[in-house]
Amino acid sequence: MRLIAFEQEGGAQWGARVGDALVALADVVPGLPAEPNAALAALNLPAGAPALAAKLAAAPKRPLEGVKRLPAVPRPGKIICIGLNYVEHAKEGNNPIPDYPAVFLRGAASLAAHGSALLRPKASHKFDYEAELAIVIGRRARHLTEANALDCVAGYTCMNEGSLRDFQRKSTQWSMGKNFDRSGGLGPEIVTPDELPQGPNALRISSRINGRTLQDSNTADMIFSVPRILTILTEVMTLEPGDVIATGTPSGVGYPRQPPIFMQPGDMVEIEIEGIGILSNTVEDEA
Amino acid sequence: MRLIAFEQEGGAQWGARVGDALVALADVVPGLPAEPNAALAALNLPAGAPALAAKLAAAPKRPLEGVKRLPAVPRPGKIICIGLNYVEHAKEGNNPIPDYPAVFLRGAASLAAHGSALLRPKASHKFDYEAELAIVIGRRARHLTEANALDCVAGYTCMNEGSLRDFQRKSTQWSMGKNFDRSGGLGPEIVTPDELPQGPNALRISSRINGRTLQDSNTADMIFSVPRILTILTEVMTLEPGDVIATGTPSGVGYPRQPPIFMQPGDMVEIEIEGIGILSNTVEDEA
Repeated sequence: MRLIAFEQEGGAQWGARVGDALVALADVVPGLPAEPNAALAALNLPAGAPALAAKLAAAPKRPLEGVKRLPAVPRPGKIICIGLNYVEHAKEGNNPIPDYPAVFLRGAASLAAHGSALLRPKASHKFDYEAELAIVIGRRARHLTEANALDCVAGYTCMNEGSLRDFQRKSTQWSMGKNFDRSGGLGPEIVTPDELPQGPNALRISSRINGRTLQDSNTADMIFSVPRILTILTEVMTLEPGDVIATGTPSGVGYPRQPPIFMQPGDMVEIEIEGIGILSNTVEDEA
Repeated sequence: MRLIAFEQEGGAQWGARVGDALVALADVVPGLPAEPNAALAALNLPAGAPALAAKLAAAPKRPLEGVKRLPAVPRPGKIICIGLNYVEHAKEGNNPIPDYPAVFLRGAASLAAHGSALLRPKASHKFDYEAELAIVIGRRARHLTEANALDCVAGYTCMNEGSLRDFQRKSTQWSMGKNFDRSGGLGPEIVTPDELPQGPNALRISSRINGRTLQDSNTADMIFSVPRILTILTEVMTLEPGDVIATGTPSGVGYPRQPPIFMQPGDMVEIEIEGIGILSNTVEDEA
């Protein structure tokens, strides 16, 4: 199943994509809560995916075209990002291979929807792309083990974990470079785990600007796998429905290149993950 | 005015404290939204504080005792923390005096209410205290100047920015040590700016464990003042109602002491800020 967050009457709604059509899940799940993270919890993913999918064929549908999309999770309680999770990316920035992940957080306002423009801010033009597999949490979870970790995953989506490199390095902590308004894309849709290989640990992941491939790797090359990340995070904190975890980017980002490549107004930036889809965003300057 | 977040019928409510009594703001503000950050926005602080305060005398009151308190902001959209904002604290950890603040984020689940127990986690006993002045945002704000920055501040409260020191240093990024469930206190109440000196840049700030004073400084010693912090943050991101900004801790924290002092089960930990009040938390082990 493929979930899409969209806006209707000023509020966020969940839909399921069926081909070129969208089913509003409020039409098929009686009493679905209005708040999107509470609604996601009520969908009981991943366990509830088959029962929900079975209701889609007979449900009322609207054309997907013209639907106003929101970031794949419209208002995540937390966005937890793993830095340096691919060996070649750690090397390209002259970082050691970590034995514990570097973790930082983004705020929800740093996200942009699939099909919308990422904002290059006034304060910096060193606006770098990062293709990442993003985990979306469906159930509250603490003290997971690698054996049961995947039971809390509602699904997966693509993230462009956009980073302003000079602000990322203004102090030892990266958060400022990772929190510019609408600097990161999340989408196009959340794919439930039953549609992907277990893990999902063998997906090609790539990024393109204006059709030119800049990153091209595989989630099999992660240093910390999805179950390992979930285990490490839940040693510390409770994960809640709608939380998003960005699992790190492979090599090929823009800043270490000679000359560096940064996202520019007018660019079309795509993050593609095998089996999930293509997150597309244009880039425009902050007004 | 002194705002208290409390729980009623499973939801978060805003109240105003009048002596030993509490006025539920839903009783005096018609149509106050249910979602606490939306409700805070509707209160239109700080500008609306005098008009709201004028309604309290005639409003129905309940005893404050027995009210179930929540963290001073029950569900902040973001909790932005400034590291190393007092010269002597930077020195005690052998850090250079920063010319740009180190910024990291906490998630809402890391907070505990005034009067409740902070949790010492299973994973670490290096549970340190940090007395901090916390800013609560009342209005959306971006690209503030130091001249207008304070116009977005709903009020101020106390924070114990509890930190698990070994997890803080497992990578270059401090977030894991700052995000254990219920590891930080926020409260006891939000004090509107009209009750405090401008800035508020001359408030004694201290911490105590079991009555022993461990930190004792003054917000006048901040490296980055409140208006400067707001200006720096809003160069990057939009601040929204209910966002919390922790402004850093003075010297005297536990880890650099010989021997180190960490919070232990059974301790009574107090953070006191002049004009704001005393945030009190016990400590207990995670079950």
